[in-house]
Amino acid sequence: MISIFLIGCILVLSGAESALGVKTRYFKWEVEYVFWEPDCIEHPVMAINGQFPGPTIRAKAGDIIHVDLTNKLSTEGVVIHWHGIRQAILSFQYIGTPWADGTASISQCAINPGETFPYQFVVDKPGTYFYHGHFGMQRSAGLYGSLIVEVADGEKEPFHYNGEFNLLLSDWWHKSVHDQELGLSAVPMRWINEPSSLLINGRGQYNCSLAAGTCKFTGREQCAPRVLRVLPNKTYRLRLASTTALASLNVAVANHKMVVVEADGNYVEPFEVDDLYIYSGESYSVLIKTDQDPTKNYWISAGVIGRKPNTTQALTILNYQSVHGGKLPASQPPVTPSWDDYARMRSFAEKLRTLSRSYLPRPPLSHHHRIALLNTQNKYGGQTKWALNNVSLSLPATPYLGSMSYKLKGAFDPTPPPESFPGDYDIMVPAANSNCTVGNGVYVLPFNSTVDIILQNANALSANTSEVHPWHIHGHDFWVLGYGDGKFVEGNFNLKDPPLRNTAVTFPYGWTALRFVADNPGVWAFHCHIKPHLHMGMGVVFALGVERVQGIPGQALACGLTAKLFMNTKF
Amino acid sequence: MISIFLIGCILVLSGAESALGVKTRYFKWEVEYVFWEPDCIEHPVMAINGQFPGPTIRAKAGDIIHVDLTNKLSTEGVVIHWHGIRQAILSFQYIGTPWADGTASISQCAINPGETFPYQFVVDKPGTYFYHGHFGMQRSAGLYGSLIVEVADGEKEPFHYNGEFNLLLSDWWHKSVHDQELGLSAVPMRWINEPSSLLINGRGQYNCSLAAGTCKFTGREQCAPRVLRVLPNKTYRLRLASTTALASLNVAVANHKMVVVEADGNYVEPFEVDDLYIYSGESYSVLIKTDQDPTKNYWISAGVIGRKPNTTQALTILNYQSVHGGKLPASQPPVTPSWDDYARMRSFAEKLRTLSRSYLPRPPLSHHHRIALLNTQNKYGGQTKWALNNVSLSLPATPYLGSMSYKLKGAFDPTPPPESFPGDYDIMVPAANSNCTVGNGVYVLPFNSTVDIILQNANALSANTSEVHPWHIHGHDFWVLGYGDGKFVEGNFNLKDPPLRNTAVTFPYGWTALRFVADNPGVWAFHCHIKPHLHMGMGVVFALGVERVQGIPGQALACGLTAKLFMNTKF
Repeated sequence: MISIFLIGCILVLSGAESALGVKTRYFKWEVEYVFWEPDCIEHPVMAINGQFPGPTIRAKAGDIIHVDLTNKLSTEGVVIHWHGIRQAILSFQYIGTPWADGTASISQCAINPGETFPYQFVVDKPGTYFYHGHFGMQRSAGLYGSLIVEVADGEKEPFHYNGEFNLLLSDWWHKSVHDQELGLSAVPMRWINEPSSLLINGRGQYNCSLAAGTCKFTGREQCAPRVLRVLPNKTYRLRLASTTALASLNVAVANHKMVVVEADGNYVEPFEVDDLYIYSGESYSVLIKTDQDPTKNYWISAGVIGRKPNTTQALTILNYQSVHGGKLPASQPPVTPSWDDYARMRSFAEKLRTLSRSYLPRPPLSHHHRIALLNTQNKYGGQTKWALNNVSLSLPATPYLGSMSYKLKGAFDPTPPPESFPGDYDIMVPAANSNCTVGNGVYVLPFNSTVDIILQNANALSANTSEVHPWHIHGHDFWVLGYGDGKFVEGNFNLKDPPLRNTAVTFPYGWTALRFVADNPGVWAFHCHIKPHLHMGMGVVFALGVERVQGIPGQALACGLTAKLFMNTKF
Repeated sequence: MISIFLIGCILVLSGAESALGVKTRYFKWEVEYVFWEPDCIEHPVMAINGQFPGPTIRAKAGDIIHVDLTNKLSTEGVVIHWHGIRQAILSFQYIGTPWADGTASISQCAINPGETFPYQFVVDKPGTYFYHGHFGMQRSAGLYGSLIVEVADGEKEPFHYNGEFNLLLSDWWHKSVHDQELGLSAVPMRWINEPSSLLINGRGQYNCSLAAGTCKFTGREQCAPRVLRVLPNKTYRLRLASTTALASLNVAVANHKMVVVEADGNYVEPFEVDDLYIYSGESYSVLIKTDQDPTKNYWISAGVIGRKPNTTQALTILNYQSVHGGKLPASQPPVTPSWDDYARMRSFAEKLRTLSRSYLPRPPLSHHHRIALLNTQNKYGGQTKWALNNVSLSLPATPYLGSMSYKLKGAFDPTPPPESFPGDYDIMVPAANSNCTVGNGVYVLPFNSTVDIILQNANALSANTSEVHPWHIHGHDFWVLGYGDGKFVEGNFNLKDPPLRNTAVTFPYGWTALRFVADNPGVWAFHCHIKPHLHMGMGVVFALGVERVQGIPGQALACGLTAKLFMNTKF
């Protein structure tokens, strides 16, 4: 893509970081469990440097991020995925860093307890990103934080604002992730149920009631929200990102319109809304004008949609600085729209268009390759699974990047999974045969080919049930060409100004069409970003141009068959 | 030691396993969490092949055990330690298998999720052993089982019995081990408290009351005890082993005397007792005669001693087969002796003598080397620790066996910890300065030297408190030369017939003297077998003859600096 090429070339030509103001930002992080009170209830939380959420990284486009990540856990491995960062260039060399993508079993061996892994990658594009664990369900344990990339020096955002706030959204359970995982794999499956709480920047209020005054909004508690202090008649940028395990959310600022300007690190044609839908894995920037009565405070709310909610809204306060920040808004928080108004959700999704006056690339007008993925809930040996074209993903012990780079046999199923599903499949009812298979085959994509993905949603195991699935791709952005109800039918793609994203939702009983150029050598996950769904197999693996990958650190290979390969080289 | 040499030579000379009846016993094991009801309350339990406790291994002396251990956990590594097996010989080669000892950070890298490690070792000596996890606190999560070694074909035990039963004792908490670990490392430390239940063969009764009839003794529940069905007027061998995390126990069979004949896989001069004290890490065989009224059933009990108990006894039933097994004994279970009658405990310990007519070796009459280890509870950066000579053990990321074999620098502290403590240390009161240091230095012992260990107990952090510590050695047995109250004073060692063991207790404010011949090349843990105490640093590491070690599997080295060493060997 143009932006990648550009920065890559500049770096190669310049021959020196400092000459261009390219900076390496070093971080030393330690991951360990701590006791924390995310929603005023104490629970073990996976923290970085003793903080939850982890430290916010702020960088400028073109910077190199270097994180020495030390695993201080007792018996668990760990990795961190840099969500939305394409790992597409490394300064001075036009090669990517697919080994720094931080996906266990795919891009690297998990970091062992006591060991340190150096993540090093370029943040090539300004935008609102985040990072999170990508091993087991560690993201759900609290291993996440924000990654904000500002425009490079001398560059300007295509919109104006006076100040900004960062709101990282998540959901929280009082059940440990170990117990959650065990339940999900049990026969019969034990569902994790709805979240205990929703969190904004890691802070929430378990089961609080504004009416009863039981919420803790203004104290020094770890759960007390960070109030957004603003001046009147200014424009503020709110950076919203969702790293929820499960919840799809609707966000609103009472009395204030929001103008959407960025989605997943790409500029979009601005449009105004009263509220915004955000699914796990997505990020947005919105602008708000502080043009309301400055003698009042206003609620900012995030509530569950897409599933029948059983969790109170996450709340924080927009505080005009003339008012005391601790004063609760007199009016009620915004009402979250009906949880199952999918037409309204789709209407929001369809408003997103690439910013017309941006350098962002437009999609090729045709594709080389199409993969249609039927999203179904299935059974396998009594377990409940999610499957694509009837195959549920079970990740291998040897990460693909290593096993494919070294052409090792036996590391994963050499037969690629199916690229389509039976044409007569009735998506409106439970499958006649609910059983699926389990596998770890790979879709090998021709390098630089244009690939279309049709995500076809369907009925789950129970009748009259179809769920929301936000699909996230690693190493690339895709264009969202369109959405539809029912079974996919050809035509009506937006090829003019589709939004470029890394995450897109499929609505119940609907389809979503994506297009991307497979131009980043590596092995990349493409999966439902709902953590328990991925745990239950809802993902696929793309490999492309692996023969071009260079410089995989030895430590990323020190497990499974790659370890065996090297460790048997006796001196 | 004689037995090792003997079998080693025979195997080398024979040149074929089958010629001598030496058998390789293969096992395929998978470790994963399951939901289980050890004490009638459901909890996640670390199981092997879906069983808790893990499968019992039965073998004959001289057999080779081969366990392919597959880690089916989600994000945790795993190892298994074969407790009491010295890993001293491998068939056809007179070299040991120290890499099969199953101690993370010491003998091998933990097995990664999805990977399989082949443990292969010889069980050279008949006896009652067990196996358990040795990474983090996985033993406390339920990762354990029995390992019973019978005499070789054509050999006879030096005592007669008509049948045998195996009772593996453990304790159980309703708090997950992850939460236990986090609490132990927290500032201030959160103690795990007394066990929720005691288990016999993984079966117990949470908080049951015989009076109220709330116990579940006879159903098909996972918690219902396995009843011992016996015929009258026979002799039965009870194999007792304790893999408790914390509890020291007293075991009794109502109305039946016990004759102790084996301790930790070594024959002892038989002696009769009404009840038996057993500390974590120990095993015993006792003989009972079924000479009581055969129209009745009798309770077998295990109760907590050594700490103020807050846990009901573990119970099972000795069932004369003329009676219905489901009939509860009319009489009350044996009363556990006073928890703090240390004189009685020591009296039991001092009854143990090596069987006079056995081939078991006697100790050398003098030592080359003495290490005195002061056992103290300390503070380090606000954390509560246990320390030896003021050093609390913190295990390194690179296992010692690998780092020492390959002479890697930087893997651990090159300065050995102190071999003694200040002569004027007052063991009867809390230390004036309660702070300790944390380290991972090694005691390097001259190969084949005779080493004395003086374990000197002392006051803990609180006044008038000194705890029981059962010390367990890996790779060796030691002779227990004597016990004493207060500070160690020279003399009064039993050099004639001291018991040969792998675990020995230190009593509060007392000392225990051990002697062993450092004749097994490898790196070996020597530690308090109370799991939270080890987690808090209560252990040391011995290295000896490491240059003689051969055949460490690559997989055991695929972490830390040994991985780096090999993985940087690019093709």
